[in-house]
Amino acid sequence: MSIVTLTTDFGTQDHYVAVMKSVILRHAPKAQLVDVTHQIPKFNIEHAAMVLRQLVEWFPPGTVHLVVVDPGVGTERAVMAFRYNGQFVICPDNGLITLVHRSWTFETAKRLNRPGETHQSSTFHGRDIMAPAAGFLANGGTIDRIGEPVDSVELLALHPCAVNDDGTIDGQVVYVDSFGNLVTNIHRNDVARASQHKADVEVVVGDQTVGPIRSTYGDVPAGKPVALIGSSDLLELAVNRGNAAKFFRADPGATVKIQ
Amino acid sequence: MSIVTLTTDFGTQDHYVAVMKSVILRHAPKAQLVDVTHQIPKFNIEHAAMVLRQLVEWFPPGTVHLVVVDPGVGTERAVMAFRYNGQFVICPDNGLITLVHRSWTFETAKRLNRPGETHQSSTFHGRDIMAPAAGFLANGGTIDRIGEPVDSVELLALHPCAVNDDGTIDGQVVYVDSFGNLVTNIHRNDVARASQHKADVEVVVGDQTVGPIRSTYGDVPAGKPVALIGSSDLLELAVNRGNAAKFFRADPGATVKIQ
Amino acid sequence: MSIVTLTTDFGTQDHYVAVMKSVILRHAPKAQLVDVTHQIPKFNIEHAAMVLRQLVEWFPPGTVHLVVVDPGVGTERAVMAFRYNGQFVICPDNGLITLVHRSWTFETAKRLNRPGETHQSSTFHGRDIMAPAAGFLANGGTIDRIGEPVDSVELLALHPCAVNDDGTIDGQVVYVDSFGNLVTNIHRNDVARASQHKADVEVVVGDQTVGPIRSTYGDVPAGKPVALIGSSDLLELAVNRGNAAKFFRADPGATVKIQ
Repeated sequence: MSIVTLTTDFGTQDHYVAVMKSVILRHAPKAQLVDVTHQIPKFNIEHAAMVLRQLVEWFPPGTVHLVVVDPGVGTERAVMAFRYNGQFVICPDNGLITLVHRSWTFETAKRLNRPGETHQSSTFHGRDIMAPAAGFLANGGTIDRIGEPVDSVELLALHPCAVNDDGTIDGQVVYVDSFGNLVTNIHRNDVARASQHKADVEVVVGDQTVGPIRSTYGDVPAGKPVALIGSSDLLELAVNRGNAAKFFRADPGATVKIQ
Repeated sequence: MSIVTLTTDFGTQDHYVAVMKSVILRHAPKAQLVDVTHQIPKFNIEHAAMVLRQLVEWFPPGTVHLVVVDPGVGTERAVMAFRYNGQFVICPDNGLITLVHRSWTFETAKRLNRPGETHQSSTFHGRDIMAPAAGFLANGGTIDRIGEPVDSVELLALHPCAVNDDGTIDGQVVYVDSFGNLVTNIHRNDVARASQHKADVEVVVGDQTVGPIRSTYGDVPAGKPVALIGSSDLLELAVNRGNAAKFFRADPGATVKIQ
Repeated sequence: MSIVTLTTDFGTQDHYVAVMKSVILRHAPKAQLVDVTHQIPKFNIEHAAMVLRQLVEWFPPGTVHLVVVDPGVGTERAVMAFRYNGQFVICPDNGLITLVHRSWTFETAKRLNRPGETHQSSTFHGRDIMAPAAGFLANGGTIDRIGEPVDSVELLALHPCAVNDDGTIDGQVVYVDSFGNLVTNIHRNDVARASQHKADVEVVVGDQTVGPIRSTYGDVPAGKPVALIGSSDLLELAVNRGNAAKFFRADPGATVKIQ
């Protein structure tokens, strides 16, 4: 019984997700379906790429991740089936795979559609091309049986943080979660490299100094800001029992420095 | 292992949906539960009827659809079990079945409660009458074993579009999805009939001309409006990578013409 | 195949719930996962405690309820596994169990972590401590095999309503559901005790008189307020086909009297 996760920007008010599930379940009636989120900001490929990276980090081998954030549906962009880390990802070839591709060894990539040759709808490839492939794989089908090999895949130009020679780090906020926590592109390993240079680091968001990197939210009083390495191993700005996005008035793209 | 879908106006903040599932799972522990949406606008039977029609179009035989949009709970309205297209629908007898009834051959309808004779709560028939019936059917129970035959069912007076003698069509917006796409009551087949009269059709929303019917969103530049036959085989107004409801300032009921 | 329910304040936009499920499914691949809600108001333990009480009322023996509303994550507060009514509850020791503890006979309580001795993350015990325990129990593991016995558990000081000698009752609104229904802390049994003194009771919210206790929403015309015993056996103020929270401009804490 395979797991199939679903990540989309469809929202949860319409029938779209349910009909994708009906297609998956026709192929794999015993699949364990896991909704990740259907609230990816509309057409925001970068946001979905960050969520997908976490999924491949955590789910067991054999899991099929279906990710439908697809502003180019019906155009020439391809639809892909990937294998990384023993797991499968079905998604449009629009950069969604970028962070998974950077983090794990590439195993397989197949193009599922031949643009211009499909007879499916032109507006819902999630249902007509991706869900059948997800169901096929979830039911034990092999990825070698679907699609055609490709030479290259579309990747986003996402900026990693910069670890400078003087031990400082220049990064930015890349994700705001529903608690208002500001997740950055500064990894635990980046901090470890930088802090070899300096014992006490100090985190600065925009022009506001937050202080050193602490262990957990409760290390500061309620309502106070705190920098810590979050559960995804990334530097995170938070407010104990509060909302850091409101506290700092910060959005994705805001600068974060460690000095 | 049967599929049970759930469609309600309960929202997702309370325990109501979960306790309905607990009742279904007591009867059918291996059921595959699929949440369609719990964000039907409160008490909006017509909206739910459109969602339900899509479900019966897509799910496999044996599926049980539980639909609880029930402003008349506790009053004389009946609770029903229907069979259409090999699938089951459990819902109040308030018109929710209208579009399924129009689209598929009627197989069976049973009244589950005898008004005034039940000992259940008067405020949550979804949990006390409908969920047990859904679980019974999902576990392989036959519809002939539950309820009493009925002579007629409640149907909504929904307006189809008008295909005129001159090949024009008068329709309206009937559904706005979470992308802001304006779904109309003009079916692909209506367009085919109309366009026998005229090679080039032109779609008009309110007093704004949109142009011909195209294939997909990407057939116009980003930010521009487009008319196309959507994934539900209905004429749809969209904006490429944008929101048509905001672009046209249109709501359900807005007029849409093909000329 | 055990049921595992999930109740959190995580929202549904992030990957947090999905990664908890990945951990549960590694331990219990055939678990039947039921999302209760992830929209508990952030850090609102009292609200979650009321939802949890309803779950234990309805789910079958063997169910595992995972409840993560955890403002104190990473601090000295313990993480617990409880058994009540043949069901399991995994949650932080911060008062979430209060209403379950009052309603059912205590069977077992175990402390899962030894504060300061865990090697897990300091910010996501839902994933690192609670989900593994939930998966272990869902897969048939015995609660005696996990954690250490405790002497006492953290309970909230929640006010029951007051049934006065003259047959009146002083209560308050404790929960507003997504329909805007005002759920109170006055139980069906309290009303039965009070109404022995007086045949006709009258419900007063703040300074507005609502009238007697009726059976269902439809007992008053659309748009009119009604008092009734709701599906959770608690006195509830509603508006037929409307929103009582807006009608009465009432929030949790508003006074409700029966006289």
